[in-house]
Amino acid sequence: MSEPGDDDAGSSADRMARIALTWLAEPGNRSMWSLVQSHGAPATLERLLNGDEPETAAAAIARAKANGFDPQQVADAALHRAERFGARLVVPSDEEWPERVNELATLETGRPGRLDQDTRPPLCLWVRGSWPLAETLHRSVAITGAHASTPYGVTVALDIVSGLCAKNWTVVAGGGFGIDTAAHRTALAEGGRPVAVLACGVDRPHPVGNAALFEQIAETGLLVSEWPPGFEPLRHRFLIRNRLTAAATVGAVLTEASPRSAAIQLMHRALSLRRAAMVVPGPVTSVMSAGCHELLRSHPATELVTGPADVLKALARPGRHDSAPEQRHGSLDPESAQVLQAVQQHGTATPESLATRTGLPLRTVLRRLPLLELAGLVQRTDNGVIAANRPS
Amino acid sequence: MSEPGDDDAGSSADRMARIALTWLAEPGNRSMWSLVQSHGAPATLERLLNGDEPETAAAAIARAKANGFDPQQVADAALHRAERFGARLVVPSDEEWPERVNELATLETGRPGRLDQDTRPPLCLWVRGSWPLAETLHRSVAITGAHASTPYGVTVALDIVSGLCAKNWTVVAGGGFGIDTAAHRTALAEGGRPVAVLACGVDRPHPVGNAALFEQIAETGLLVSEWPPGFEPLRHRFLIRNRLTAAATVGAVLTEASPRSAAIQLMHRALSLRRAAMVVPGPVTSVMSAGCHELLRSHPATELVTGPADVLKALARPGRHDSAPEQRHGSLDPESAQVLQAVQQHGTATPESLATRTGLPLRTVLRRLPLLELAGLVQRTDNGVIAANRPS
Repeated sequence: MSEPGDDDAGSSADRMARIALTWLAEPGNRSMWSLVQSHGAPATLERLLNGDEPETAAAAIARAKANGFDPQQVADAALHRAERFGARLVVPSDEEWPERVNELATLETGRPGRLDQDTRPPLCLWVRGSWPLAETLHRSVAITGAHASTPYGVTVALDIVSGLCAKNWTVVAGGGFGIDTAAHRTALAEGGRPVAVLACGVDRPHPVGNAALFEQIAETGLLVSEWPPGFEPLRHRFLIRNRLTAAATVGAVLTEASPRSAAIQLMHRALSLRRAAMVVPGPVTSVMSAGCHELLRSHPATELVTGPADVLKALARPGRHDSAPEQRHGSLDPESAQVLQAVQQHGTATPESLATRTGLPLRTVLRRLPLLELAGLVQRTDNGVIAANRPS
Repeated sequence: MSEPGDDDAGSSADRMARIALTWLAEPGNRSMWSLVQSHGAPATLERLLNGDEPETAAAAIARAKANGFDPQQVADAALHRAERFGARLVVPSDEEWPERVNELATLETGRPGRLDQDTRPPLCLWVRGSWPLAETLHRSVAITGAHASTPYGVTVALDIVSGLCAKNWTVVAGGGFGIDTAAHRTALAEGGRPVAVLACGVDRPHPVGNAALFEQIAETGLLVSEWPPGFEPLRHRFLIRNRLTAAATVGAVLTEASPRSAAIQLMHRALSLRRAAMVVPGPVTSVMSAGCHELLRSHPATELVTGPADVLKALARPGRHDSAPEQRHGSLDPESAQVLQAVQQHGTATPESLATRTGLPLRTVLRRLPLLELAGLVQRTDNGVIAANRPS
């Protein structure tokens, strides 16, 4: 098994392959991500184009081939287009890669279905704006809520964002109208560094009515997307994008949402990732607060917040900002948890000894170790694997 | 040790003494209640007037004596006045006594202070209205909230009370303006049986503006008070009264309250008694919802409710309406809990054997057993004490 971050990590071949793979499957695709973990991006691309992985993205590859898909060409075009817009590509081996998003490697949604297949870490990120991505996201909070927000929701969002900016927290939101827009505008007004995580290329203003806002964000903060320039904001991409917002931040605040809002799905991602999941209550007579109340009622891990003071308190709680490894096991799949436990019971363990101790096939152990390493739960040494002292 | 409910229980001497004792200490007074538990009401009255219990209510007795206090006379006058208003006296040995209020015997508030001394069960109750008290309160819910309620709070209270009346729940509230009034008016409109628990005599309309409402309640439902007719609604009595409302009902709903509202204190009583403590959220921008949010944030046992459906669900939860003994230990003081545990580990135990097993003085065991019996947690048999199968 080759290791993730092979010799070619960060090379132009690696970067090119990561871009090209986005044409073959949506970001977060489990099979694709596992292949890249095992073989690296260039070899994965080669295997796919050679038909060595018939199970993975077969239809997409067939389509791509029929259209005369040329990886180098699409990557070059994307990079060229990005350059025109002052955007850059960030890959996992880059210094500004936000390590926190790697925790998606261990996300268990517990729900089958199309969208819950696309929950793995991103292969690469496109960024517009001059701040380093990791540093900007280090102390960051997602603000989410309805596009059809009421004056109440906007007022509350303004209040919370102001309070977060005053304490130098980065505010992260989508690009939609309503709460997203209110969050960014307030962050701009307060001299903060707004980050908009988009479900389309960073060169595509969507909604068009926010075009001027996106320009301001690109100048003052960051526009971030997993999709290459030019990619369209398809409906399902907003939900795929939400996992990234949840993973990239320390916690998420839900201000207003109807029960079936996409903002609720973002909160579920935050809960699965053990992020601070903060919810603003509202009038029980308002349908735009019904989703908030439903979440507060059904998930004991959510926290009711009434303003910036409550939010800052929730973020300051131990285990939030620098969560201890013990507190993150809950989001591990059972096999990873078994492997981790076996690692923690030894000084240094080899994969073979872990297989013996856990009763799992060596192959399974070898698949789980990179995930645990990415999540900052184990470290590799020359002699084998040891438990990590602290998360990366 | 004499048992509570001696031969004289329910006799005219017992009734007279219980009325007269109200002149010597506020309802719920711990020392007074303990004496009545140990000696019965008539003997307690005698001991107090003889000066045999100098520690208890000494100042009040001195004052009473100075004023030529005549127990028979004050009791006769109170009964006479009650009769004029169609009110009756209900004592613990009466069939319509609401057994649930006896659980106040084991209430631990965990907070020292003047008011938290007055938390024991009532010695007697004054009732106006034709329904039997116990039956009326059997399926009952307290509605509480600010007197200075907003239209939002009133709207929500109306909605919840309507839903409760539709399912034949009795609605219990105080007599104040705002939420109390809204609850009673809605119950009347919905054909329910409103119960107003007052902090003064049932013949005294307070506030006077609600005089007509009290008449309607007396005709359709019940007016209830621990204070004899003519007694004034002193400030501290509202807080003493709240423990009765909490104990008499299956659960309490807080609709709107500022953080220092008396309604919050009622909710704390409900929590201490392990009643369903249901709280309606509201706009975080409204100070009248700030108390609700504070309670929801600080007490995990509170339940966020958004309307009648949520309230009915909370009331239907196992352990609510007929709570199992196991679920009630949490409200016991440590010594009572020790004694109970020792009882549960034996078939039949004598007080002496319980003292040996628990390491507590026999005197302490003898004091705790009546409380546990009242709370329906132990039963006395000819051979000793056994654990109760189910609460009384």
